[in-house]
Amino acid sequence: MKTWVRFKQGDAVKFGTLDGDTIAVYNGNMFDNPQPAGESVKLADVKLLTPCSPSKMILLWNNFYALSNKLGVAVPEEPLYLLKPSTSYIADGDIVKKPNSYDGKVVYEGELGIVIGKRCKEVSEADAKNYIFGYTCSNDVTAGQLIQKDPTFAQWTRAKGFDTFGSFGPGIVSGIDDPNKLVIKTILNGQERQNYPVSDMIFPPFKLVSMISHDMTLEPGDIISCGTSVGVGSMKPGSTVEVVIDGVGHLVNKYEA
Amino acid sequence: MKTWVRFKQGDAVKFGTLDGDTIAVYNGNMFDNPQPAGESVKLADVKLLTPCSPSKMILLWNNFYALSNKLGVAVPEEPLYLLKPSTSYIADGDIVKKPNSYDGKVVYEGELGIVIGKRCKEVSEADAKNYIFGYTCSNDVTAGQLIQKDPTFAQWTRAKGFDTFGSFGPGIVSGIDDPNKLVIKTILNGQERQNYPVSDMIFPPFKLVSMISHDMTLEPGDIISCGTSVGVGSMKPGSTVEVVIDGVGHLVNKYEA
Repeated sequence: MKTWVRFKQGDAVKFGTLDGDTIAVYNGNMFDNPQPAGESVKLADVKLLTPCSPSKMILLWNNFYALSNKLGVAVPEEPLYLLKPSTSYIADGDIVKKPNSYDGKVVYEGELGIVIGKRCKEVSEADAKNYIFGYTCSNDVTAGQLIQKDPTFAQWTRAKGFDTFGSFGPGIVSGIDDPNKLVIKTILNGQERQNYPVSDMIFPPFKLVSMISHDMTLEPGDIISCGTSVGVGSMKPGSTVEVVIDGVGHLVNKYEA
Repeated sequence: MKTWVRFKQGDAVKFGTLDGDTIAVYNGNMFDNPQPAGESVKLADVKLLTPCSPSKMILLWNNFYALSNKLGVAVPEEPLYLLKPSTSYIADGDIVKKPNSYDGKVVYEGELGIVIGKRCKEVSEADAKNYIFGYTCSNDVTAGQLIQKDPTFAQWTRAKGFDTFGSFGPGIVSGIDDPNKLVIKTILNGQERQNYPVSDMIFPPFKLVSMISHDMTLEPGDIISCGTSVGVGSMKPGSTVEVVIDGVGHLVNKYEA
């Protein structure tokens, strides 16, 4: 298992693998045979960026049996999803900012993010694993009261697409054999609010990659954020939200007005 | 007025301005003071690409009074939109391909595309014009029967996000002073099927840019496809669809199974 991070050192954007408080720098393309640069830097001396720059970030709705039960909605036959724009992406440590144009509730949603490693189209569930680079933590921030504001059109994209509403990182962990054993926890101001297993997913990671790849080609660095489960709640300005997935990472963001 | 195109010459991706059958090649960044390269190529000798590579493509729903009336839905208070993934983008002359996983109707939607020229966030309607680089033709291809397939979640992104479902081009026309005078026509196999004016838009171009920029930062090359009006219809394999906007362009794609 390796933890891949991307960071800024002065004006240069670099990437490498994180071990404790040290990053071993790599050259080339993170997704295509990167080579050690023979150089290392202290994590404390750099600013972490999002670990990759997805050409698309796909977000699932209603992908956990527990939440589906709680909401009283049918288990879907196929993955239900939307996209976040790249202008929403932020890294570990960055601030989630309340939109000036919206005064309703803003909620956290701790999620597992699948990071694609190789271009794939119409791959089988059995083969999907070979196209996954690794996993990351995701906070799918949502302006909850916008979604149903217009009775004719659910505004999923807008509600989840504001600048700073797509937090993921801090790194991408490669080499995880069985993502179905992972557990997602979300901590709001030090209190655990979500704690749910990937094993409760309606469409688990390999199935998701396979099914979505039948709709659209997935590119290296694309992220599928697998949807959230019970325990979603709203943040007040000044709140700190942590998404913790043991073996994957610990993503921390503050929310500010 | 200039028509900006992007093209492939051998392995090189270049851009420039189209005049008749000749492209004057430019160097640098199309959106940031590009410089004439002092070189020209024949249009017939190159393969046109999408005129830019949007970091996001925003698609409007229900943005024309005529269509809103016809569908019997309320005029929205705010723009209703979704995003297409970059893997859906295709250029003039490329093939729109039926998804293998979907056998329902696939419809054309001829639309005006606004191309952003400068990064903008929270711009006023009066100021929006200064952030628009130009206009393009867009065919917002849609797997119509997917949208309402799941009763709990309208699948806009999926229905419009298949590979090859986002056609725009052939170029971007800059220097258009008043987009509200434009008229969009869509021609299916030689027969005119759509013919509607921008002046019927619920949220016209400058207002759209302003309102959407209050939700998310718009980047150079981002496209807002302004929604379609009456006359949408389905394509059969072998169909040719043309989106024609006088003064903007003529976008042609074939649809194949």
